[in-house]
Amino acid sequence: MLNRVRSAVAHLVSSGGTPGSGSNELPTPTPTSPDPIAHAVAPRSPPAWAESGTKASGGAVENRGSSSRPTFLKLSPRGLRRAEDHAGRVVQSPPDTGRSLPWRTGYAEVINAGKSRHNEDQACCEVVYVESRQARMGGPGKSIKDQGHQGLHFHYWGLFDGHAGVGAAEMASRLLHRHIREQLRGLVEILQDPSPPPLCLPSTTEASVSLEPSCPGGSQPCWPLQKEVTHESLVVGAIENAFQFMDERMAREQRNQYAIGGCCALVAVYLLGKMYVANAGDSRAIIVRNGDIIPMSREFTPETERQRLQLLGFLKPELLGNEFTHLEFPRRVQPKELGQRMLYRDQSMTGWAYKKIELQDLRFPLVCGEGKKARVMATIGVTRGLGDHNLKVSSSTLPVKPFLSCFPEVQVYDLTQYEHCPDDVLILGTDGLWDVSSDKDVAATVDKVLSSYEPNDPSRYTALAQALVLGARGISREQGWRLPNNKMGSGDDISVFVIPLGGPGSYT
Amino acid sequence: MLNRVRSAVAHLVSSGGTPGSGSNELPTPTPTSPDPIAHAVAPRSPPAWAESGTKASGGAVENRGSSSRPTFLKLSPRGLRRAEDHAGRVVQSPPDTGRSLPWRTGYAEVINAGKSRHNEDQACCEVVYVESRQARMGGPGKSIKDQGHQGLHFHYWGLFDGHAGVGAAEMASRLLHRHIREQLRGLVEILQDPSPPPLCLPSTTEASVSLEPSCPGGSQPCWPLQKEVTHESLVVGAIENAFQFMDERMAREQRNQYAIGGCCALVAVYLLGKMYVANAGDSRAIIVRNGDIIPMSREFTPETERQRLQLLGFLKPELLGNEFTHLEFPRRVQPKELGQRMLYRDQSMTGWAYKKIELQDLRFPLVCGEGKKARVMATIGVTRGLGDHNLKVSSSTLPVKPFLSCFPEVQVYDLTQYEHCPDDVLILGTDGLWDVSSDKDVAATVDKVLSSYEPNDPSRYTALAQALVLGARGISREQGWRLPNNKMGSGDDISVFVIPLGGPGSYT
Repeated sequence: MLNRVRSAVAHLVSSGGTPGSGSNELPTPTPTSPDPIAHAVAPRSPPAWAESGTKASGGAVENRGSSSRPTFLKLSPRGLRRAEDHAGRVVQSPPDTGRSLPWRTGYAEVINAGKSRHNEDQACCEVVYVESRQARMGGPGKSIKDQGHQGLHFHYWGLFDGHAGVGAAEMASRLLHRHIREQLRGLVEILQDPSPPPLCLPSTTEASVSLEPSCPGGSQPCWPLQKEVTHESLVVGAIENAFQFMDERMAREQRNQYAIGGCCALVAVYLLGKMYVANAGDSRAIIVRNGDIIPMSREFTPETERQRLQLLGFLKPELLGNEFTHLEFPRRVQPKELGQRMLYRDQSMTGWAYKKIELQDLRFPLVCGEGKKARVMATIGVTRGLGDHNLKVSSSTLPVKPFLSCFPEVQVYDLTQYEHCPDDVLILGTDGLWDVSSDKDVAATVDKVLSSYEPNDPSRYTALAQALVLGARGISREQGWRLPNNKMGSGDDISVFVIPLGGPGSYT
Repeated sequence: MLNRVRSAVAHLVSSGGTPGSGSNELPTPTPTSPDPIAHAVAPRSPPAWAESGTKASGGAVENRGSSSRPTFLKLSPRGLRRAEDHAGRVVQSPPDTGRSLPWRTGYAEVINAGKSRHNEDQACCEVVYVESRQARMGGPGKSIKDQGHQGLHFHYWGLFDGHAGVGAAEMASRLLHRHIREQLRGLVEILQDPSPPPLCLPSTTEASVSLEPSCPGGSQPCWPLQKEVTHESLVVGAIENAFQFMDERMAREQRNQYAIGGCCALVAVYLLGKMYVANAGDSRAIIVRNGDIIPMSREFTPETERQRLQLLGFLKPELLGNEFTHLEFPRRVQPKELGQRMLYRDQSMTGWAYKKIELQDLRFPLVCGEGKKARVMATIGVTRGLGDHNLKVSSSTLPVKPFLSCFPEVQVYDLTQYEHCPDDVLILGTDGLWDVSSDKDVAATVDKVLSSYEPNDPSRYTALAQALVLGARGISREQGWRLPNNKMGSGDDISVFVIPLGGPGSYT
């Protein structure tokens, strides 16, 4: 069954490093955009951050000046043209030359059907070394012993779904893991020390037991013991702060016009037995384990973050200008409805009630619309991510950025708590995948594809990523075939990582 | 087995209306508080809200001037003394005279072991009639047809766990259901009309399709269709707003010194086939259905609401005075640690990171402590509820109220979606129950007690409520017996409603 699918879709799939290999070759792509490869083959001169590379075992970062696609795709100029063809929409994957990505990770992507000139998704896959500072930290009473600890490696996968330009997603794909490395640098010894992290560096034994006498709660301190902080929460904090530093860096670079637009960021960090999945935006991660679905992220949209947005507008009305109201209405209020009673909800409500319409209710609601059409300030459909520092409300100078958060939600999965089989995978996908594929659709494809490959076949995870992208890619009339589920496909950029969680040879 | 428990605990249980009935009689209570019944038998002159009663089938509201306990307990002066005895801690229930509460609801309560003079819990159980306005609402184009709709009944159960005084809990127990009735009054026809609720009252057909042309998002309105609002979300909105009106009323009465302190509020409203459970505070509701546990509320504490509190402190630093910092530290920062690096987290973080200690970090953290010792502003351990309008930080004029929310979280359970058996129950309990009993403990007691009673035994749900309170009440050395789970008991006030969700004769 799968072979039939395989041969039917072979001409829609390309492995970057094998441009002349048989059926993967596309006949003659017909670019629909004015000059789809101009940016890819003749880029602007690269900014400073694109030049000095991390030592990358995934090969995703160094010297990618000639391409706007991830370097691990190893695209030739011809492959690049094919990757930017909005009509053919050939699915791109790394070359079939053994294990090109760590953990035998599978990856596939496809460009949008014309909604933007370039593929605004970006991806990164890395093994990153965090050097130990070898510095003796801590005071005389309680110190971190420098027992010759080595540095740490972490594995890293990142998907960046750009909007309003390709700059932010490109920058994040090249730099975010370096910011994570920077945040982890001071923790190398602490994370390898089995004792609980020190609360203070340097700290003394006295300091950790004696308390400040002037407790506002009265003579009895409400807080007699110190809170225990886990190693895991230090890694979470490091990732959270790395996102913030990345965002601040974009604000600086935005002034130099290198980073344009914004991006959602979904990253997975594997460190010391645990997988940390951090999400800021509307990309999505799930684990499929023995057929069960474990959600590893939540989406952040005007609908899911309505109350946070409304609360900010309520507490800081100056951020709304005179253009917006923090109240939500089920549709735009008409001037002629002044004095009538309309349904509304505010920052504290989940239900609806009627209120008498007053003059300020005629302003546009801060949050409006539903589903994919939901918007903050009638402008943007995601409420977390990186960049967007210059984003303004259309025909206005009102900035949108104060309502956007760069902080991810981090979920942690302990890989040591379960014996994984080769068919257990972590799937990271941009919204192009999830707009048309449910978790169950994806789990069914995982089962169908992986069961048709030997557990040690090095191409099984790439084949799965390709099948997921093809499944979501949409129907092409020219190609004359329809998707099995008969659904409409996504015309958006689609990018997918498939990360195997177990099985021999995975953790390389 | 249960009979053994029954006879062992019989002298600890009292049914209010049967003061002379055999083993329920307590030998001779020994009050430990200075004058435990003074307030109950000689109350201050009642405020206006205590006088005009709702027509109460549960008998909980009218004329309760002579008692500070729920009138459905029908306590005699002697029973009142017993109910306020901190040493004996006799469990109180409504009298054994048939179905004294709607739905055969079971109820039991016990006073604290001495932590406050009075039992600061309050309870209410009502059937409330909402009169139809019989008014023709709506404009010429789309109107609500007045088809002679009758009014609506809703069933209502409320638990109010007071703090810093009994006033707020008493006031809420007498008035909150009336505020809910007021909020529902304008919805009587709408809720009984199967068509979707009108967005605007009165509204015209034109108004619901034509849109304001000046959309800040550009020429394409981002919001072409109106959002559909459900009947259910109108009820949720009515309950949310009733909490807010109740809180505002307390602010007014606080000036007259009638409402003192604050209270958590946990209420259940049954209306048109659905049970709405609204919680503001650290009380808790679960459904036990066929042995499964369905949580029906979440607790709101400085720990669960840390990020909301910190965000408010960050956006409105004037609310912190110069006394508090919105940052959290794992323990109080010492002046001598200035310049060192300590673990912290801010309003956006769930993980921890190190920061260099600066002068303002020496302020007391807005949120501190863990578990039952967690506090906002070193003052209060719950972050939602009613009242507390005069609550100040100890030895300061800084108000705590801005950080407290009066809005409940409302969860909805559709009773028509499942055929309930007589052993399926909704349990509402104040934190005195849950501090020492897990959901599983409670479910086990549900199974043990209900299986020992016939399904039609009118006393089975009261017996269950008593068993739950007894189980949480704690160990009394004088009585010489220990609880089966060998746990320490709760010295707090404990109140429990047991609401049967099915079975013959329940819905009366």
